[in-house]
Amino acid sequence: MEHDLRQTISFLARTPASLNVLLRDLPETWTLRNEGENTWSAFEIIGHLIHGERTDWMPRARMVLRFGETQPFEAFDRWGHVQESRGKSLGQLLDELARLRSENLDELRALNLQPEDLKRRGRHPALGIVTLSQLLATWVAHDLTHLHQISRVMAHQYRETVGPWSRYLGVLQCAGHSSPS
Amino acid sequence: MEHDLRQTISFLARTPASLNVLLRDLPETWTLRNEGENTWSAFEIIGHLIHGERTDWMPRARMVLRFGETQPFEAFDRWGHVQESRGKSLGQLLDELARLRSENLDELRALNLQPEDLKRRGRHPALGIVTLSQLLATWVAHDLTHLHQISRVMAHQYRETVGPWSRYLGVLQCAGHSSPS
Repeated sequence: MEHDLRQTISFLARTPASLNVLLRDLPETWTLRNEGENTWSAFEIIGHLIHGERTDWMPRARMVLRFGETQPFEAFDRWGHVQESRGKSLGQLLDELARLRSENLDELRALNLQPEDLKRRGRHPALGIVTLSQLLATWVAHDLTHLHQISRVMAHQYRETVGPWSRYLGVLQCAGHSSPS
Repeated sequence: MEHDLRQTISFLARTPASLNVLLRDLPETWTLRNEGENTWSAFEIIGHLIHGERTDWMPRARMVLRFGETQPFEAFDRWGHVQESRGKSLGQLLDELARLRSENLDELRALNLQPEDLKRRGRHPALGIVTLSQLLATWVAHDLTHLHQISRVMAHQYRETVGPWSRYLGVLQCAGHSSPS
């Protein structure tokens, strides 16, 4: 489907609130547990989303608008969430995600991007030439990747508890499909 | 992890509100589109959750408490959502899901189930003997299966729009893993 920036913004504005309803004040058996070695808990995933708000989406959009293809984006630190979340509660992280997302969307709206702006090109350090449209659509799909992951991590905690139903539950068959972004 | 009924209820109470924040008033390009032939849109998935509230979880819990293993549950109609959602808007479905879930959880709380009740056994038409604990845990994991699916269905609509980033986005690698429940 054609990229409609209003739709992208409308979606991005709702993810933090949806995650807040889903996760705030849940017992830590759900929010701090992961799927095993080298996997993330819901708490870590929220930290990762915060790190993206600070260092990925709008900073890269600014890079496209200022430098075009001439300067590559900084590589995204997939472990940046460790520093973001140190010493914080999940409630604090959810508040921070909501605040940063809101500020970033204010900045995005203020750019008043036109269809021709969405075609502007930048340079990803690994993927090469990308457009501003692709970057902003990826912001949405990245939210959805992590909502997909959080659903899976939380369901994993009930893997044994559901007994024989486990074979019917799609989320328990998902092996995860994430790669560094 | 051991089944803690308070946690189960605490989670079940939040799914409708989280889905409401995520989906209400989104453009139909996201809520009415699916992943291709024989797949469901977000709209259809909400209809399926409503059908579960009416015919699956609490009706089966009542069956366990009344009849134990002596009488099998009715098979769940995986196409029951068609009738549930005919002529309705997504907003109406979200309202209905919230209302039915709230009524069902009121009924569940009123049962005041004790740990020994959770061990009570019923008969699933295909899986055989299951416990009340497993049934209630499956209610949670079923919500998560469909949150996982909704994330994937929505991300699918941006599959082309994200350009080269698609290879990094885990949700776009997920092939779906659902079976009839």
